[in-house]
Amino acid sequence: MILTVTPNAALDVTYEVDAWERGGSHRVRTVRQRAGGKGLNVARIAAALGCDVTATGLLGGVVGELIRDDLEQAGLTHDFAAVSGTSRRTLTVVETGSGEATVLNEAGPHVRPDEWSAFLERFDTLAASAAVVVLSGSLPPGVPEDAYAELARRVTGQVVLDADGMTLTKGVQGRPDVVKPNAEELRRATVAAVAEPVAGAGEAKGGRPMLAEVVGRAEALRVAGAGNVLVSLGADGMLAVTGEGVQWAAPPEAVVGNPTGAGDAAVAATARALTLGLPWDELLRDAVALSAAAVAAPLAGDFDPDLYVRLLPEIVIEGLSCPS
Amino acid sequence: MILTVTPNAALDVTYEVDAWERGGSHRVRTVRQRAGGKGLNVARIAAALGCDVTATGLLGGVVGELIRDDLEQAGLTHDFAAVSGTSRRTLTVVETGSGEATVLNEAGPHVRPDEWSAFLERFDTLAASAAVVVLSGSLPPGVPEDAYAELARRVTGQVVLDADGMTLTKGVQGRPDVVKPNAEELRRATVAAVAEPVAGAGEAKGGRPMLAEVVGRAEALRVAGAGNVLVSLGADGMLAVTGEGVQWAAPPEAVVGNPTGAGDAAVAATARALTLGLPWDELLRDAVALSAAAVAAPLAGDFDPDLYVRLLPEIVIEGLSCPS
Repeated sequence: MILTVTPNAALDVTYEVDAWERGGSHRVRTVRQRAGGKGLNVARIAAALGCDVTATGLLGGVVGELIRDDLEQAGLTHDFAAVSGTSRRTLTVVETGSGEATVLNEAGPHVRPDEWSAFLERFDTLAASAAVVVLSGSLPPGVPEDAYAELARRVTGQVVLDADGMTLTKGVQGRPDVVKPNAEELRRATVAAVAEPVAGAGEAKGGRPMLAEVVGRAEALRVAGAGNVLVSLGADGMLAVTGEGVQWAAPPEAVVGNPTGAGDAAVAATARALTLGLPWDELLRDAVALSAAAVAAPLAGDFDPDLYVRLLPEIVIEGLSCPS
Repeated sequence: MILTVTPNAALDVTYEVDAWERGGSHRVRTVRQRAGGKGLNVARIAAALGCDVTATGLLGGVVGELIRDDLEQAGLTHDFAAVSGTSRRTLTVVETGSGEATVLNEAGPHVRPDEWSAFLERFDTLAASAAVVVLSGSLPPGVPEDAYAELARRVTGQVVLDADGMTLTKGVQGRPDVVKPNAEELRRATVAAVAEPVAGAGEAKGGRPMLAEVVGRAEALRVAGAGNVLVSLGADGMLAVTGEGVQWAAPPEAVVGNPTGAGDAAVAATARALTLGLPWDELLRDAVALSAAAVAAPLAGDFDPDLYVRLLPEIVIEGLSCPS
């Protein structure tokens, strides 16, 4: 079983407006909303791939109820702990003409220490039967910054961590098996460990700017505790820095769409590959194809299954160095 | 008793963000929410002035529950009909530095004909014991455009109408006793009846541009069915075009703040004056003072009581013409 943890689950609300005018008054043309937060996107995608998935985390208030209702409707197995605060909403304002999307993220409920302790107990029970535990996204206020390290240490199965900032930096101290930052998250997490390169110095040939720098930062994250590092590079695909060396894969074509949720698709592919014991090259191929297929789907947590199946055999893995 | 009707009640949500960046991702610093919609603002203010007020209208779904909870907490008497759709939210995004406010309005629930009929029955019962009925704000989808005319015709007491566009144009056919547009709403409602003035032709002396035009349009609205017309003019105060002639009053000083809800304060003052049988000059004085005091309060539906009491004796009424 894959257990996804979403401490700061959200109701993702999307407003469509004609065009944004600062200081103006806008009619909202359409309102869509569904359960979100990175862990729930991972759960949705992994379930769509046929995995046995359980989603856990913290939910509270009216918004928490709406999230729970949506998970029920989606047929996702879930087991969330209740908190007294109200779960957050995220709002994406999409402009009809340009497609420009602007995001507003609420912080989330304030979680009391006793509520966090109650969650830890529930987590232990769930994690005991999980082959892979996925720790994803931001922490709500009140949850300790090292929460992901604490959770990772309690797990006997494998752990995938996808976080940002201090949540990532402290999280790797729990020695997760795989960490999946994007290039910017990786840079932030290793800013103290790796000096900023002189402009141009880190650029490799063949249209892979800064690849050397990314590898260096990924190695630094491994030194800090990450077992293996998958760096998502947007249209440039994904880099795996593992005990077996450095591998890189990119989609064979540029996919236009909504990049939100592409990282979650990569994490879902990773979690599935870990449960199946797939080698890194197969994991990487799957993650790149699924990410690209997620970009083609309008909502985070969805992917285009036809594109996924079509891209999968076309992804070429390139080894960039020998195992260290 | 004053009965306020809010067919499209809202949960007014306010997000505070550092600065809006189109296409960016924003952290919401604070989230505030409370029951709103013009009729509920009127009810809140009239109740604060000591009036016996009941709020009615349509509520549905989870958002409807939150609105009802907030009315309970505010101690407002309410008797809303339930609809199967979900009541709307309005979102105001306020930028911390500049104070710039941008508004996003959801349309509201789709109301079925049988739901509207059920509301009409409830309305009849409530209106039977109301001295003044206030009809305020937009109509949710599915409610007939002439809804306010229909409601006004069912009332034996006096009716105050505050609406915009076709809702106002059709509403005046129900012969409400007082209609309170602002200058722009008045212009839209009378665009067919009164020709646009040649630039400069309608300007009166003494810093009252277009006053002659406003009076002409208000008279046109009376011809269309409005018994009396109060035109709110922002910092320029308010114009009363009634069977007793034209009167004008402005606040003695400019008030800086949030103009949203100033019109609702004027309507609340009007409803109270009608229940007390006050003459037009006293009504006008009260409406202008309360509007200015509402601008000084950060939230629509609130007013600054000290400012209200201080301004009240300073408002001077000016008669602009003899009764026609």
